[in-house]
Amino acid sequence: MIGADAAGMSAAHTALRTAAGAGREVGVTVLEATRHTSYSACGIPYWIAGDVGSGEDLVARTAGEHRAAGIDLRLGARAVAIDPSRRRVRFVADGTTGEIGYDELVLATGAAPVVPRWARTADGGLLDGVHPVKNLDDGALWNALLSGGGETGAPARAVVVGGGYIGLEMAEALIRRGLTATLVTRGRVMSGLDADLGAQIEDALVAGGVDLRTGRTVDRLETAGGRVVGVVTDTGERLAADVVVVATGVAPATGLGAAAGLAVGEAGGYLPDAGGRVAPGIWAAGDCCEVEHRLTGRRVFLPLGTHANKLGRVVGANLIGVGGERRFGGALATAITRFVAGGVHLEIARTGLSSEDAAHAGYDVAALVTTGTTASGYMPEAEPIQTKVVADGATRRLLGVQIVGGAGSAKRIDAAAAALWGGLDVDDLAGMDLAYAPPFATVWDALQIAARRLADRI
Amino acid sequence: MIGADAAGMSAAHTALRTAAGAGREVGVTVLEATRHTSYSACGIPYWIAGDVGSGEDLVARTAGEHRAAGIDLRLGARAVAIDPSRRRVRFVADGTTGEIGYDELVLATGAAPVVPRWARTADGGLLDGVHPVKNLDDGALWNALLSGGGETGAPARAVVVGGGYIGLEMAEALIRRGLTATLVTRGRVMSGLDADLGAQIEDALVAGGVDLRTGRTVDRLETAGGRVVGVVTDTGERLAADVVVVATGVAPATGLGAAAGLAVGEAGGYLPDAGGRVAPGIWAAGDCCEVEHRLTGRRVFLPLGTHANKLGRVVGANLIGVGGERRFGGALATAITRFVAGGVHLEIARTGLSSEDAAHAGYDVAALVTTGTTASGYMPEAEPIQTKVVADGATRRLLGVQIVGGAGSAKRIDAAAAALWGGLDVDDLAGMDLAYAPPFATVWDALQIAARRLADRI
Repeated sequence: MIGADAAGMSAAHTALRTAAGAGREVGVTVLEATRHTSYSACGIPYWIAGDVGSGEDLVARTAGEHRAAGIDLRLGARAVAIDPSRRRVRFVADGTTGEIGYDELVLATGAAPVVPRWARTADGGLLDGVHPVKNLDDGALWNALLSGGGETGAPARAVVVGGGYIGLEMAEALIRRGLTATLVTRGRVMSGLDADLGAQIEDALVAGGVDLRTGRTVDRLETAGGRVVGVVTDTGERLAADVVVVATGVAPATGLGAAAGLAVGEAGGYLPDAGGRVAPGIWAAGDCCEVEHRLTGRRVFLPLGTHANKLGRVVGANLIGVGGERRFGGALATAITRFVAGGVHLEIARTGLSSEDAAHAGYDVAALVTTGTTASGYMPEAEPIQTKVVADGATRRLLGVQIVGGAGSAKRIDAAAAALWGGLDVDDLAGMDLAYAPPFATVWDALQIAARRLADRI
Repeated sequence: MIGADAAGMSAAHTALRTAAGAGREVGVTVLEATRHTSYSACGIPYWIAGDVGSGEDLVARTAGEHRAAGIDLRLGARAVAIDPSRRRVRFVADGTTGEIGYDELVLATGAAPVVPRWARTADGGLLDGVHPVKNLDDGALWNALLSGGGETGAPARAVVVGGGYIGLEMAEALIRRGLTATLVTRGRVMSGLDADLGAQIEDALVAGGVDLRTGRTVDRLETAGGRVVGVVTDTGERLAADVVVVATGVAPATGLGAAAGLAVGEAGGYLPDAGGRVAPGIWAAGDCCEVEHRLTGRRVFLPLGTHANKLGRVVGANLIGVGGERRFGGALATAITRFVAGGVHLEIARTGLSSEDAAHAGYDVAALVTTGTTASGYMPEAEPIQTKVVADGATRRLLGVQIVGGAGSAKRIDAAAAALWGGLDVDDLAGMDLAYAPPFATVWDALQIAARRLADRI
């Protein structure tokens, strides 16, 4: 395996278990360029926010635990070339180049943050005070930055560039750490949701203290002594900044395979089949891949631990090749996050296709936003929840659901994801037997009221 | 319609809307024996607990609102006989007997609490301090009782008889009101869940301050001056009691139809078809019915507002008879509750078949309890969650899920309910694209870890 995070280590352990279960022996070697393994990148904003005590808490399994399970884990070993015809990988470790042969190779090289030119120094490094949020080193750096201690003291003003999941989570973290946060985003916030719900999210961010600049790009940074002091947007506005979060997305790290002639998709990711194969003897899993969307059949780049773990597990079983073929069932682009700061508690989730996605995919889109409550209206637990249901007007098939609301809203998306997984229609969602008691739902759950209203209109 | 709660009023409004949509006129009369309409019986324990300010808050739609929508609502009108051949109903209102004809009749008479003999006085009334929890009058009575004001002052010691949903919710309410609560139940607590999870619930109740007596029945009550002072169990134990909650279940109120020759099932409920018909020109919906279990096809008595509303709506549309036939899709016996008192926050949910149900229905039962957390383990939101997944070992089909855990656990049952609704298998539940972010779930959601572990064992 190349890469020792979710996908690579899921594949490694599953391969060992599968082989052991079949009474076979397999030697598993993992090359990892960094010193880190099996950590939760998604947890880093919460570490920065102060919810998590240390980076070690984010490590699901340590190198020692992996090795104790029988994996030859080589940290600090960067794969630099693969030769599929000879089935060999060249790598650099401690300044020395080595080679290793393989019978089966798993590419699990993940994704790397997209760092725009404005964030970089002339020699390609990062400006002081400007940083992405991707790995444990980034998390440690952010914690050090925010604690001050340098000559400039603790920063007070942050600009977050990027309005996706990491951007929102970092805005939350920084406000909770006592900074002011200005969020600059090219389009709108959370553009995976439709504009109507996006507007609700933007209102909540502003209410929670985020100084929002949508539809803007960063033109350049201003620095003083090599350190960022301001962000200048494309409209010429200058935003004071002691620190700048680069949350402009990630791209699949597929240079290694591309150089060896492996195909990549529109987003630059490997294109494994449902069994995880990309070429004879070569497999891929995790954020370096584009996965199949279960509804459209199209390839989508969804860098998220859930798919990495699932596809990693599929690959680990299939490369041993005993028992039946395992298949990755596809992705629904389910996602969830929250913004909890400045007295605001907002939860956000989506699954399947947004209206915009569905129109783009050629469906006869029917969609409706419905406002409800998370609990019976007379209960203190009741919070507002807005649910958008998207269906195919021609077939009544459910295509997607988006949720924006207060505490207890967002995890409801799972019922919609399960309905989508089963290929159910909007009438099924409206009629199914969801759980009701006053602290937990209205008698028709918010999800069902939304589905029923849409069903009545199709 | 006979009965002006969830089922009857859903039917009434849907009938009006359906007729109006088709440009037809329909006269809708509703006879209701009490003075109350469209209230949330499920909310009464929370009114007693102090979460809800008044009984009026539990009324979803007032009589005035129903009448404004065009319904001839007659409160205090008790139907006493129906004559299907002449299509007439006899009723008593204000001491006077009347008769009304109908083209279509909807029976929505609900369920009545089962009041054991030990709770009754010689003349069939209730002993002072002994009461069920069913309608708004009961709620008002409980609030008056608990506020004291009488010569005996506010009660301090409660005995709750019955270990189902109402029993638990009343134990919570009474402890939160400052009383001690002893809970006596014939079998185990929450017997709709399997015994392994039931034991977890019992531990939590005890930790939350409930003095628990499982496997006991009430032999008799002790009274002083006509007022309850103690409960004597079948083991001869005497439990001091200032008040006694009768939470020993409800039974379908079907005397009216049975007297007219309508069939009832094993539990005594009407047996409407999926369209809501029980006889020519006669329909039934709500707690007076046994509904079809979507998995087994068997009739089950599930007195719950969700089914009442859904079947009421089906009936209201079908009795007008324009457009296609509406069908009730069946029930999964999904249910949810909590016990939050004495420093304990326990959530409980179930859907589909328990192991015991599944064995009884003849399945080749495979089941497993898995312990997880509701959020990533490093997050402050993480609470323990135990998930039991039940599947058919022969076909891998998912049969049911039960959840017991901390805050944020129980509503996860909806994803399982959706999977059951779609007839999915345990591998689907293990592999589907559920929502993950650290405050909301582990990277494999607790539900999926549980499904995967079971899938690996089948």
